[in-house]
Amino acid sequence: MYLECLMLNRTFKQRYLVADQYWKKDNGPILFYTGNEGDITWFCNNTGFMWDVAEELEAMLVFAEHRYYGESLPFGNESFSDSKHLNYLTSEQALADFAVLVEYLKSSIAGARHSPVIAIGGSYGGMLAAWFRMKYPHVVVGALAASAPIWQFNDLVPCGTFFSIVTNDFKKSGTGCSESIRNSWNAINHLSSTDAGLQWLSNTFHLCSPLKNLQDAAVLKNWLSETWVNLAMVNYPYKADFLQPLPAWPIQEVCKFLKDPSLSDKALLQNVFRAVNLYYNYTGEASCLDVSQTATKSLGEMGWYYQTCTEMVMPLCTDGVHDMFEPQKWDFDALSEECQRMWGVRPRLSWILSMYGGKNINSHSNIIFSNGGLDPWSAGGVTQNITNSLVAVVIPDGAHHLDLRSRNPLDPKSVQQARALEICLMKQWIETARHSH
Amino acid sequence: MYLECLMLNRTFKQRYLVADQYWKKDNGPILFYTGNEGDITWFCNNTGFMWDVAEELEAMLVFAEHRYYGESLPFGNESFSDSKHLNYLTSEQALADFAVLVEYLKSSIAGARHSPVIAIGGSYGGMLAAWFRMKYPHVVVGALAASAPIWQFNDLVPCGTFFSIVTNDFKKSGTGCSESIRNSWNAINHLSSTDAGLQWLSNTFHLCSPLKNLQDAAVLKNWLSETWVNLAMVNYPYKADFLQPLPAWPIQEVCKFLKDPSLSDKALLQNVFRAVNLYYNYTGEASCLDVSQTATKSLGEMGWYYQTCTEMVMPLCTDGVHDMFEPQKWDFDALSEECQRMWGVRPRLSWILSMYGGKNINSHSNIIFSNGGLDPWSAGGVTQNITNSLVAVVIPDGAHHLDLRSRNPLDPKSVQQARALEICLMKQWIETARHSH
Repeated sequence: MYLECLMLNRTFKQRYLVADQYWKKDNGPILFYTGNEGDITWFCNNTGFMWDVAEELEAMLVFAEHRYYGESLPFGNESFSDSKHLNYLTSEQALADFAVLVEYLKSSIAGARHSPVIAIGGSYGGMLAAWFRMKYPHVVVGALAASAPIWQFNDLVPCGTFFSIVTNDFKKSGTGCSESIRNSWNAINHLSSTDAGLQWLSNTFHLCSPLKNLQDAAVLKNWLSETWVNLAMVNYPYKADFLQPLPAWPIQEVCKFLKDPSLSDKALLQNVFRAVNLYYNYTGEASCLDVSQTATKSLGEMGWYYQTCTEMVMPLCTDGVHDMFEPQKWDFDALSEECQRMWGVRPRLSWILSMYGGKNINSHSNIIFSNGGLDPWSAGGVTQNITNSLVAVVIPDGAHHLDLRSRNPLDPKSVQQARALEICLMKQWIETARHSH
Repeated sequence: MYLECLMLNRTFKQRYLVADQYWKKDNGPILFYTGNEGDITWFCNNTGFMWDVAEELEAMLVFAEHRYYGESLPFGNESFSDSKHLNYLTSEQALADFAVLVEYLKSSIAGARHSPVIAIGGSYGGMLAAWFRMKYPHVVVGALAASAPIWQFNDLVPCGTFFSIVTNDFKKSGTGCSESIRNSWNAINHLSSTDAGLQWLSNTFHLCSPLKNLQDAAVLKNWLSETWVNLAMVNYPYKADFLQPLPAWPIQEVCKFLKDPSLSDKALLQNVFRAVNLYYNYTGEASCLDVSQTATKSLGEMGWYYQTCTEMVMPLCTDGVHDMFEPQKWDFDALSEECQRMWGVRPRLSWILSMYGGKNINSHSNIIFSNGGLDPWSAGGVTQNITNSLVAVVIPDGAHHLDLRSRNPLDPKSVQQARALEICLMKQWIETARHSH
């Protein structure tokens, strides 16, 4: 379904999905997914938790697509053409879209007028869910913000924790694993210093486009880093297909190739290839590996890139000591220059804090912040209760918003308990809302 | 002082005024006036309450000018040239300016880092104060929203109450007063049907530009209506100069001319002239009366007109029965057409409700809504407590934000009590903020 959204005096179509088969028509609750940076159908298909609880809560499910993603393109094909067209892509505008959509649904669906609405989202969508409750408490009675790194901004958390969590995931998943990866960077550096080495790397990694120079080698390293990060995010306890189709506990699988960090450069990198090939080619369908792509195409890379160049500035850094990556300082100026070059915009480092309060959020209420202990994004998450109604749920064995996924027989106890608590709190919010009428 | 404010990648200078002579440098509180639609120096000079309490609270005073008013013009002389330049004039942008300004002050003024900040404003500035606390509770610990008609939107309150309050003020201030005004409209209608009558009206009202046709006569009636409304707003118990220099209880003075509603058209209107002449020419300096101006030039009419054509749509209506005005239905479509013609924009009726929650604001905290019983804007104000910390203060003998004015020996008891309660609550907010550190 689509809602006409107002922009200046023009409108654009915003896509949203509705499932009401379990909904109690007499003001039963609405679970409202605050869509993030991608196609909403993909989030809809990867948020099984909402489907699992719909019957129990007699809830309607709504999945709202974020403007500038999926099919909700304000200026159609022109949406990303320049910063003038991109100017309406902000989290604030997205939240306003959600508010207007909720009001529209409540006024247009018979029996929904007094339906309590709960915002649910994961990752950036989780931030949006939390911020939605903070900024529009009259629209949503509460929010489940799963794996939402609302504090991964400015100087609120150390920039290095993110990558040290990734490293720990690999360290715990096999002897020699994180050390192999740590050693791989120099091995690539050695080989990429000669044309023959670049050729060997291109062949060994089955690259779709061969590496031609040191810049390309840097791209390769960056792509490998992102691969390890992504594996940490999707290190789920069962076979799954989120960013890529993968086996259960994929880091353990990957680490089976990375037991010996003391191998020669070439032998080590052949193992690294086997590791990343598991991530990119678990189905065996890829004829070559593409270093320009690390995850599902359902994510909107252009839009997100622009967002990181304006509001969503999340400082990250590595030191090679507390993590297995090549040392890289957080360099705001370099980011700013690149944003200026790419879009003619400059990021505003402290804006998200000014807008959403940073760590000073204790006057808000009814937000669950859930985080997985295996998830690098937990570095910027709320992992301790702030007040009685700003509740942190930590899932030690969980990767990126595992709790939002469908129930699975292989679910660890910790995620089962997390979901039980989440459901319990949501029921309380619904009850309270009902009594206030 | 001026702060560079970011707009797109450009900046503009926002003016603000600071008084710190009573401020306790070690994190003493900051009283922050959320400037409304006019020159900030004018609000600064008409908000004596803040100056009166500064010493007792050991507070710094800050008066922030609203973008597009006074000297804070984002595009200089071009600011009002078209809707493209006016596009950044919204209450949301104004609040964001205030948030960034507060953060800037706290980080740049030695000893202000942990200063609790309280938002204070009157009228539209009072709405901004309340909304500032709602949207930026991490920036301000509380808000005093004086005479803020936050419910004068959409269908939240009846559109006729506003004018019936004006009428009551006149009814109570002298026998025959409101009836004289009610009868004056037909008298004008009779006279304006002939050229001689128009000439007589122009002479009698000492108009700077003579009336030429029925349209001009409509302007005259509109100007008279606004005059009665303004008198209701500034019906203060002592000599004052807010919208115009006026004596104490000016409606009583005006009503001395309007005792006999049964006079002939001409005799009645001569009395009406004497009444409005008191409003426009109390100092005796005006050589003629200008029907295009009803209040101080310190208010920014252009900007406010644009705001009423976008966000600030406040339905008002008269029926001539419950009020002393010519019957006029609330006509959204006519407004919309005029806005389209004037600025190329159309008002968005329900936007303020979507953004700020309408009557569903009980999850917020630490806001005082004060309203005067004589003030027509109390029709859209919060006049009953919502929760323990969303407190309504009613001042039966008060006109438009009387409580924000300087203490005066002629102050009625009710405004003294209101101010005492306001100070008490502000002290509580400051104490609580201090303990949370």
